[in-house]
Amino acid sequence: MTPFVFSMDSHVVEPRPLWQDGLPAALRDRALRAERRDGYIVMTADGVDLHRMQVGDGNSDNPRIGGTNPQLRFQDMRKDGIDGELLFPNLGMMTYAIDDADLSFACMQVYNDWLIGNFGGFPDTFVPTAVLPMRDVAQTLDEFRRCVELGYRSVMLPTLPPLGLRYNNKAFDPIWAYAQERGIPLAFHVASGLTPITERGPGAAIINYTRLGFATEELVTYMVAGGALDRHPGLTMVVVEAGASWMVALGERLDEVNEAHQFYVRPKLSRKPSEILYKQVKATFQFDRACLRTIPMTGHECLLWASDYPHMEGTFPRSREVIEQVFGDSGLAPAVQADILGGTAARLYGIEPKKLELKLAA
Amino acid sequence: MTPFVFSMDSHVVEPRPLWQDGLPAALRDRALRAERRDGYIVMTADGVDLHRMQVGDGNSDNPRIGGTNPQLRFQDMRKDGIDGELLFPNLGMMTYAIDDADLSFACMQVYNDWLIGNFGGFPDTFVPTAVLPMRDVAQTLDEFRRCVELGYRSVMLPTLPPLGLRYNNKAFDPIWAYAQERGIPLAFHVASGLTPITERGPGAAIINYTRLGFATEELVTYMVAGGALDRHPGLTMVVVEAGASWMVALGERLDEVNEAHQFYVRPKLSRKPSEILYKQVKATFQFDRACLRTIPMTGHECLLWASDYPHMEGTFPRSREVIEQVFGDSGLAPAVQADILGGTAARLYGIEPKKLELKLAA
Repeated sequence: MTPFVFSMDSHVVEPRPLWQDGLPAALRDRALRAERRDGYIVMTADGVDLHRMQVGDGNSDNPRIGGTNPQLRFQDMRKDGIDGELLFPNLGMMTYAIDDADLSFACMQVYNDWLIGNFGGFPDTFVPTAVLPMRDVAQTLDEFRRCVELGYRSVMLPTLPPLGLRYNNKAFDPIWAYAQERGIPLAFHVASGLTPITERGPGAAIINYTRLGFATEELVTYMVAGGALDRHPGLTMVVVEAGASWMVALGERLDEVNEAHQFYVRPKLSRKPSEILYKQVKATFQFDRACLRTIPMTGHECLLWASDYPHMEGTFPRSREVIEQVFGDSGLAPAVQADILGGTAARLYGIEPKKLELKLAA
Repeated sequence: MTPFVFSMDSHVVEPRPLWQDGLPAALRDRALRAERRDGYIVMTADGVDLHRMQVGDGNSDNPRIGGTNPQLRFQDMRKDGIDGELLFPNLGMMTYAIDDADLSFACMQVYNDWLIGNFGGFPDTFVPTAVLPMRDVAQTLDEFRRCVELGYRSVMLPTLPPLGLRYNNKAFDPIWAYAQERGIPLAFHVASGLTPITERGPGAAIINYTRLGFATEELVTYMVAGGALDRHPGLTMVVVEAGASWMVALGERLDEVNEAHQFYVRPKLSRKPSEILYKQVKATFQFDRACLRTIPMTGHECLLWASDYPHMEGTFPRSREVIEQVFGDSGLAPAVQADILGGTAARLYGIEPKKLELKLAA
């Protein structure tokens, strides 16, 4: 039987006038928006261009119709064999790149209200992720609590916080404690809070994308070595779109330095760094095969499959084929494959792991 | 039979007055040196403190006696079961951290002359590595040629070049072409050219060490994505002390983005990035076990064992025990283990893979 397939990295596409319509009147002309200019899609807010992407070939054979509308999204999910999704923003990722704190936060709140209103009604299919600010602990906690009251079971924080803050800062402990108390995993999506393009020379496309993965590994290192995860053993981090094969390499490395440099290591950790990592950090992947070979070392519950719908680097509309390629010769037991494809995600978010066609038929 | 064991990461310890004695008179009071101050060993040159390390517990049960003297070094190697070594500097690593170009280069030349003079007479046991400057292509090539004439079979370049230069720069092609022509592998040791301490808060010891590994992965990404390795298919890079388990993760990641973002990738590579990586990049490791599990994907010739003698994070004097732990349950064929432990290194540097006791008896 085909297992329940849950994509741990999928994106909505915000309706075009979301922020122009939703922001308080005084902020509307500074609203986050996307524009086409000279062959580029330019993401802009407050008079500043935040990011631009060359317009691709449009994947015209496979239009993605489910960006905004849940009913249309079901059609794409059926086509692709996907039964549920963790939802991230598209343009809303750029809220972390807006300098002005008030404007940035106002854009996040508009997004958080819209997302749960639009995709919140299908709790066994969609897990919407709220976008939390990370400049001030009290503000983060206020919005976190507000989003939990709105029904959110997933929230995201930026891979790199603004203002030179780092995730080894003990001042963040109330955020970790609240997430642990409510059992809400913290999601960190690549590129959030980072300047995605830092290299423009030869190899830039590969270099910039690969660097985003290193930044995720650095984030995880801060959370493990700084002690946040060790002090909150019930806290779960989900790191998204950085692949998963680096997990075991990082685990080995952290253990090595933790022992070799023990004279200098502070805080002392109560567990081996790799134990903390494999237990409390979940990594999402699309095409990675190497991570499946090191399951004897990491266990399989830190590995979660994702499609990255509707993005170009994602697996739509051939997710079934990619899953077959990745798992085909892995030699993994069916129950292990089922966990990686959706079972672990279902437990993480309290979802009934039911196939989409059964849910739609009900 | 015990295989030939070659450490791909070992360090000499320069005699104390090396640079004070060896530099031209006008530069001597600015010479690179180490001083003890307030419980720290401070590496200093030109009036600037370049790096400091807390004085550890001294490993008093196991003094390292072979820093400077080859005959004493043989005693430590016998004790540890090591038959040959690739030699890197200790204090000399700091030549990359000296701002003044003339002083930095003069210190490198003093080191290069001393090292080959002192350790050059045992070509099947020691492979000394020359330190090359990386500010000006003509200067790099001049010193590279001079070192080859002195008998060097290994040279090192900094992980991060100075002056904002990056390894996707086509201007470096003459260096790559010369290394390829002479069959000399280019070594890149962690921390060379980088500020080793960037974090001072909680977890700093782990974070800073782990970051050095990410910088090595970034270096390799520049060399693959920028096209240098693809344009010089006979060129070999050796990346030292960054571990090896990340190799397959990076290979998977590079292939993924190379395909998914093909519309933006320039230069186009003639081979899959992972093919270039596993063929032309060799990674050294001490304790990593995960890299052995992914040999079906990477092949084993990119994996090379190292001891990091005489450093604290190294395996001396229990290298035999570490090797047993790492390889014991790996299930690898003896010939594969022998290659990783020394066979591949012997072919790389044209060494006769003979046990140390047999060489000393001869």
